[in-house]
Amino acid sequence: MKLLRYGPAGAEKTGMLDGDGQVRDLGAHVPVLTGAALTPEALDRLRALDPAELPLVADPGRIGACLASVPNFYCIGLNYAKHAAETGAEPPKEPIVFSKASSALSGPFDPVIIPRQSEKADWEVELGVVIGRETLYVSEADALSHVAGYCVINDVSERAFQIERGGQWIKGKSAPSFGPIGPWLVTADDVADPQALALSLDLNGTRVQDSSTDDMIFSVREIVSYMSRFLKLMPGDIIATGTPSGVGMGMKPQRFLRPGDVMELRIEGLGEQRQEAVAAG
Amino acid sequence: MKLLRYGPAGAEKTGMLDGDGQVRDLGAHVPVLTGAALTPEALDRLRALDPAELPLVADPGRIGACLASVPNFYCIGLNYAKHAAETGAEPPKEPIVFSKASSALSGPFDPVIIPRQSEKADWEVELGVVIGRETLYVSEADALSHVAGYCVINDVSERAFQIERGGQWIKGKSAPSFGPIGPWLVTADDVADPQALALSLDLNGTRVQDSSTDDMIFSVREIVSYMSRFLKLMPGDIIATGTPSGVGMGMKPQRFLRPGDVMELRIEGLGEQRQEAVAAG
Repeated sequence: MKLLRYGPAGAEKTGMLDGDGQVRDLGAHVPVLTGAALTPEALDRLRALDPAELPLVADPGRIGACLASVPNFYCIGLNYAKHAAETGAEPPKEPIVFSKASSALSGPFDPVIIPRQSEKADWEVELGVVIGRETLYVSEADALSHVAGYCVINDVSERAFQIERGGQWIKGKSAPSFGPIGPWLVTADDVADPQALALSLDLNGTRVQDSSTDDMIFSVREIVSYMSRFLKLMPGDIIATGTPSGVGMGMKPQRFLRPGDVMELRIEGLGEQRQEAVAAG
Repeated sequence: MKLLRYGPAGAEKTGMLDGDGQVRDLGAHVPVLTGAALTPEALDRLRALDPAELPLVADPGRIGACLASVPNFYCIGLNYAKHAAETGAEPPKEPIVFSKASSALSGPFDPVIIPRQSEKADWEVELGVVIGRETLYVSEADALSHVAGYCVINDVSERAFQIERGGQWIKGKSAPSFGPIGPWLVTADDVADPQALALSLDLNGTRVQDSSTDDMIFSVREIVSYMSRFLKLMPGDIIATGTPSGVGMGMKPQRFLRPGDVMELRIEGLGEQRQEAVAAG
C-alpha cells in the first residue's frame, strides 16, 4: 500500500493510492496518520479494504508529510562509505545515532527554509524507515518484522550549526522544514528488498547524489536491531538511514543551498520529492 | 498550580494538588496531560477553577510521569562548571544540545531499569523546563514567557553507551525508564526565580549532588532563546537543563548504578523523586 496525506498544511487528510495511482480518501478509516495506524493489526485492516470502494479524490492538491507526527525522528550518520570519506571521517565501526526535532517534519514539496544566520545548508537524500511495533532487544533476524514501511527523506542539514557550534549534531538537523518525508509511506510488503533501491538527488537539474541502498554500511535490519539495544523504538518512529556521497559539504569548492535552488529526490519505488530553498522570514 | 498524573502505568489520570497538598481529579478538564493543555490560554482556564470543587482523590496510588508524552525530550550538556570539570571537559562556549528518546519517559517513583550489557549507568538530577508555546527566534527577554512550567528530571545516563560507542550522546540517554519526570509539573507563575532553586540527589541515603540552579552556565532564559535559533520548540517539549557535579562518572573511583541502589532527588519547590535501580529482564 501507498499511504499519504493531502490538503493544506495543518489540515491534511489521509489517503491511499489506488492501482491507477489515484488518491482515495482513507479518512473514515484513518483520521490522522500516525503510529497507531501502522501496527501490523492496523495495516491488516487497511489491506482488507478495496481501494475502488473508497471515495476518489479528484484533486488532492498539496501532498503533506506522510506522517502527521512522529514520536522520534532518528537519523543514522555516515552510513555510506563514500559519504564518510567526503566529510573527512572514518567509516563508523557501529551505527552513529542522532535525532532531528520532530518539529522539522515537512511535506515533500514544501519549501526548504534556510534558517536565519545560516551559511551552510545542505541536502541529503535518505531511505526512511517507519517503525510499526514497540521494538526493544530485537534480533537482526526479526528486525524487519518491526518495520511498517519506507519513504523518501531529505535530511536537510546546516553544517555550521551541526559541526561548528559545540558538540552534538541535532543543532544542525532540526530547523523547521529540515525533514521532508514522503510523498508516500510505502508499506513493507511492497518493498521487496530495502537494500536494493536506487536513490538520487538532483540540484537544479544536475544529478549530485546517485547511489543504491546496497552501499549502506549498516543495513536496515542491522540498524533496527542495533538501536533496540539502546532504546525502545515506537510505532510511528522514523529513522533516516544515512545519505550517500554527493552532498554540498563534500564538493570542491563546497556548495551550499541558496534561495531559489531546487532539489529533486527519488528512491526506487518510493516516489519523488521536489523542494525549492527559500530564506527564513 | 501543581499538575500531576496518577494511576497505573498507561492508564494515568490527570490531577491537580490543592492548597492542602491533596490530589484533585482534573480529568474532566484535562483528559490527557500533554502540550495542548499547557498553552497560556489552556493554563488560564485551569487557573480559573476552584480546586476545592474538583473531586478529591483519596488514594491516588502511583504517581506517573507529569506529562503523558512529549514531542521532544531535549537535554543540555555540561551546564554546570564543576560538572564539566569532573567529566574532564572544558565548560562549553555555547549550550550543548542533545536529546533522549521520548520512550524514555518514566514516573518519578518507577524503577530505573539498568539495560542489558550496561556497566556504567549513572544519575543526573536536573531542572526540567516544559514549553507552553511554539517558540522560534525568541529573544532572551521574551524567553520565559514561552515556559509553561518546571519539574524534576533524573537524566539517567549510560556512560559507555553515551561516550564509548561512536559519537552522539543519545545512545546512552534513551533506554526505557531513563527519563523520570515529576512528581509535579509546577506552572511558571509558581516559580519565582528558576535560577535560585536548590537541587540535590542522594544515593542510598548519602548526598552526592548538592547545588543550586544559580550555578548554571547558561540560564533557562538563555537556553530557550538559544535553542529557538536552531529549531522550533513546541508546547509540551521538555528540556533537561544540565546536572551539577556529583555524578558517578566523576567519582574516584567511578561508581555506577547497581540493582538495589536507591536515588532520591529534590528540587526546591518542585518536589521529590525516588527510584530503585533494577536489572533489565
